[in-house]
Amino acid sequence: MAEGQLDPASIPDDGLTTRERRLLPITAVHTGPGKGKSTAAFGMAMRAWNNGMDIAVFQFIKSGKWKVGEQAVLTRLGELHRDTGEGGPVEWHTMGAGWSWSRKRGTEEDHALDAQEGWEEIKRRLASEQHDMYILDEFTYPLTWGWVDAGEVAEVLQNRPGTQHVIITGRNADPRIVEVADLVTEMTKIKHPMDVGRMGQKGIEW
Amino acid sequence: MAEGQLDPASIPDDGLTTRERRLLPITAVHTGPGKGKSTAAFGMAMRAWNNGMDIAVFQFIKSGKWKVGEQAVLTRLGELHRDTGEGGPVEWHTMGAGWSWSRKRGTEEDHALDAQEGWEEIKRRLASEQHDMYILDEFTYPLTWGWVDAGEVAEVLQNRPGTQHVIITGRNADPRIVEVADLVTEMTKIKHPMDVGRMGQKGIEW
Repeated sequence: MAEGQLDPASIPDDGLTTRERRLLPITAVHTGPGKGKSTAAFGMAMRAWNNGMDIAVFQFIKSGKWKVGEQAVLTRLGELHRDTGEGGPVEWHTMGAGWSWSRKRGTEEDHALDAQEGWEEIKRRLASEQHDMYILDEFTYPLTWGWVDAGEVAEVLQNRPGTQHVIITGRNADPRIVEVADLVTEMTKIKHPMDVGRMGQKGIEW
Repeated sequence: MAEGQLDPASIPDDGLTTRERRLLPITAVHTGPGKGKSTAAFGMAMRAWNNGMDIAVFQFIKSGKWKVGEQAVLTRLGELHRDTGEGGPVEWHTMGAGWSWSRKRGTEEDHALDAQEGWEEIKRRLASEQHDMYILDEFTYPLTWGWVDAGEVAEVLQNRPGTQHVIITGRNADPRIVEVADLVTEMTKIKHPMDVGRMGQKGIEW
């Protein structure tokens, strides 16, 4: 009844042991017009951190103040890991003013190129199994706008080595991404305070 | 386009200043059969912590290992606040074996009484404005089962003093709760690995 407590509907005849099956990589997609897509992804990162996993966030849309809270906390958890060995390491990369690994700065004019560069870096890291969990935040938008090829992303995700988890957030997830995902959740807005003219709330929206 | 960045549809004629409107208390409900209801609530708690808010989690369903990651991280953030002054304080209360404030232990036989006791405590705390954010995790179930009266909960939420935020998670939220909520999101399952016989994954499910 409580979330996540269901038993598997059936045990697959795939020749894997329970332990092996528990270590399979997950591709998760949080999509739909409602709230909580990114927030739930960052909540998953808390859980992964607690399991000592190596986490990398790639934020594909510069979101202003909206995600500073999550970024501050996850970055702080990464520092805790560095200083005390608790949990796992955390990297947070934002596209807005040039990716942190890139020498060039502030190509605000060419978001398409920035998005491609971000994806190329993620591909390299997946190939070398650099992290345990990748959060590709708002990654559906560069796919929708054709800046990054959704078919290629689906293929890379499907064929990535090891047990790396990937979580993609954003509205209108491409069907090819949904097809290769294991876990797809749609967040639907039923009621939102902005509908009745209320402003974003400190501590709630950012 | 990015989550949360929309402007209010209209500015209400309620005589409040923007600042006052930003400080209005939010009642949020995460419901539906999909994943992420609790995880998104705990993600909101990260954000609130970063704003120095006082957070209390009341977990109405004993969830075994499923939420140990979130509990560990939020508890750790509460310790950080105590030790360094960063962020805000965090309390985590679980119903399972008797609430932590209660002297009696392990009334595993009478969950209805435990749930009522939890709600009575929350009512007292709301009346005295003890916390800034209350997460009533899986609280929809005791309402559905009639252990706690949904009409009373709706009334207490509607009339609570101050600017206390309340987030309720769980399937099948009672219509009276939805009615008084400001922000209602339904998480819908589109695809889940357990459908194809995969087990819960370490770092993903707990």
